[in-house]
Amino acid sequence: MIADAQTHKDKASAWFEELRNQICDAFENLEDTQTTGPFVDRPAGRFELTKTQRGTDGDGGGGLMSVMRGGRLFEKVGVNISTVHGTLSPMMIKAMAARKDIPGLEENPVFWASGVSLVAHMNSPKTPAVHMNTRMFWTPVASWFGGGSDLNPMMEVSEDTEFFHDELKKACDKHNPEYYPKFKDWADEYFMIKHWGEARGVGGIFFDDHDTGDWDADFAFTQDVGRAFLDAFLPITEKRRTETWTDADREVQLIKRGRYAEFNLVYDRGTHFGLQSGHDPSAVLMSMPPVAKWP
Amino acid sequence: MIADAQTHKDKASAWFEELRNQICDAFENLEDTQTTGPFVDRPAGRFELTKTQRGTDGDGGGGLMSVMRGGRLFEKVGVNISTVHGTLSPMMIKAMAARKDIPGLEENPVFWASGVSLVAHMNSPKTPAVHMNTRMFWTPVASWFGGGSDLNPMMEVSEDTEFFHDELKKACDKHNPEYYPKFKDWADEYFMIKHWGEARGVGGIFFDDHDTGDWDADFAFTQDVGRAFLDAFLPITEKRRTETWTDADREVQLIKRGRYAEFNLVYDRGTHFGLQSGHDPSAVLMSMPPVAKWP
Repeated sequence: MIADAQTHKDKASAWFEELRNQICDAFENLEDTQTTGPFVDRPAGRFELTKTQRGTDGDGGGGLMSVMRGGRLFEKVGVNISTVHGTLSPMMIKAMAARKDIPGLEENPVFWASGVSLVAHMNSPKTPAVHMNTRMFWTPVASWFGGGSDLNPMMEVSEDTEFFHDELKKACDKHNPEYYPKFKDWADEYFMIKHWGEARGVGGIFFDDHDTGDWDADFAFTQDVGRAFLDAFLPITEKRRTETWTDADREVQLIKRGRYAEFNLVYDRGTHFGLQSGHDPSAVLMSMPPVAKWP
Repeated sequence: MIADAQTHKDKASAWFEELRNQICDAFENLEDTQTTGPFVDRPAGRFELTKTQRGTDGDGGGGLMSVMRGGRLFEKVGVNISTVHGTLSPMMIKAMAARKDIPGLEENPVFWASGVSLVAHMNSPKTPAVHMNTRMFWTPVASWFGGGSDLNPMMEVSEDTEFFHDELKKACDKHNPEYYPKFKDWADEYFMIKHWGEARGVGGIFFDDHDTGDWDADFAFTQDVGRAFLDAFLPITEKRRTETWTDADREVQLIKRGRYAEFNLVYDRGTHFGLQSGHDPSAVLMSMPPVAKWP
């Protein structure tokens, strides 16, 4: 059981790193191959890497934050991986207990978590912003996967929305026909800016506390959600990358980003966990938009 | 006792409205008298007024939101008054109970609240942003005042900080020599962006759950905190209004505003109360900066 846990942790964290590499390569490739548009004269964007750590004593684990800024397509995109461990605070236990019953956790409230997360804010208001995150969470009494991906168009194009959802559906259907409808509904509920009664984007999938009892199957599903992200997002970017936009489009984008910031700071579970658990705030908040407006 | 409560509510809400009028007049006067600087060719800024309401059934009370945008000095300033009433949700009761013991509140969890709040974001990075709020909160078993004011320089000037603190101290000292040190410390603790371990500004005063048993004295104190705001802020603005700034100063300002937005959305008690209690989100969030950056 303990040997298994270690194997699981190693496999999961290795995968999140591999997925990070695939995504960073794909995004730099998009920058290299951009041949038109207002920012084509800029050098192709490149990720800057920064090691991050949880807590200040160097013993809580850490990660790697990769941020590309001011590129030809990407105004700001952050791709984080982290593998952290420590003790759950009473507040964190309470937040978990509100979602699911985890008997025995209070007696030995330690955790280990590993994951990859990304948020991309694009120069073009015609290309959607996007978020993807997958993670494994482990405690001595339970372990689970969570994650999801959602599309945040600044100005919705229904064929992009459909395409994005279809790709996520394909990934889900490979594993269980019930997953997509369930996790799509969950995303619709989760990515809601409750105070505006407004969705932050056009949804996607969201899952958490995912533990069917078959770790290998759950891990394979989590991997496919990660792979599906590139399948879903790259073609949309390819399609929109040559479109022009107006100052009015940009204004729409900046206001939409304000709402995105509101969601992240008021409701996002990962943001709250990161800030409360003492992870490097610049890594937790790399998801924030480069510029946003509340006119 | 019930008659008293009504008199108290009437006096308090009338004062908050009067203070709102004084502040709006003073701010429009600043706009009228601006004779230099990059935006002097603009028409003098004027407040736009919008009625707001709590909830959607028209029976929770409401208020008046006044926002001036794109002025000669003020990039965006909101001054809200509201007088609302309703039933406290279990979440709101829990948040209050975490601060103070209010026996009997759960049996009859109704509330009435009235207050004035303002946040000013200036064009010039040399003029501090500022916040002021005072309010009366009433329940059948307890009533209290709360409020405060804090200065948020984009680039700190120690003489402005000292002046601001001195004016607030004068107002406090008129009532009780213990108030200023206590409420200044409270502001230092409250206006802390915990995840950065960084103050959002240079502080001021903050008080809540203020009930000495002498309603008239507590009300007079709350009034003086409101009056002190103008005494503290106007001279600083007068002094800085002719200074020029650079693009680099503006960048510092926009990043500082990002941190301000983080505080408001992650920690601000008034924002949480407003969003949770179903007040008009555009009134609750009028405090958000017009533009902010997370580079």
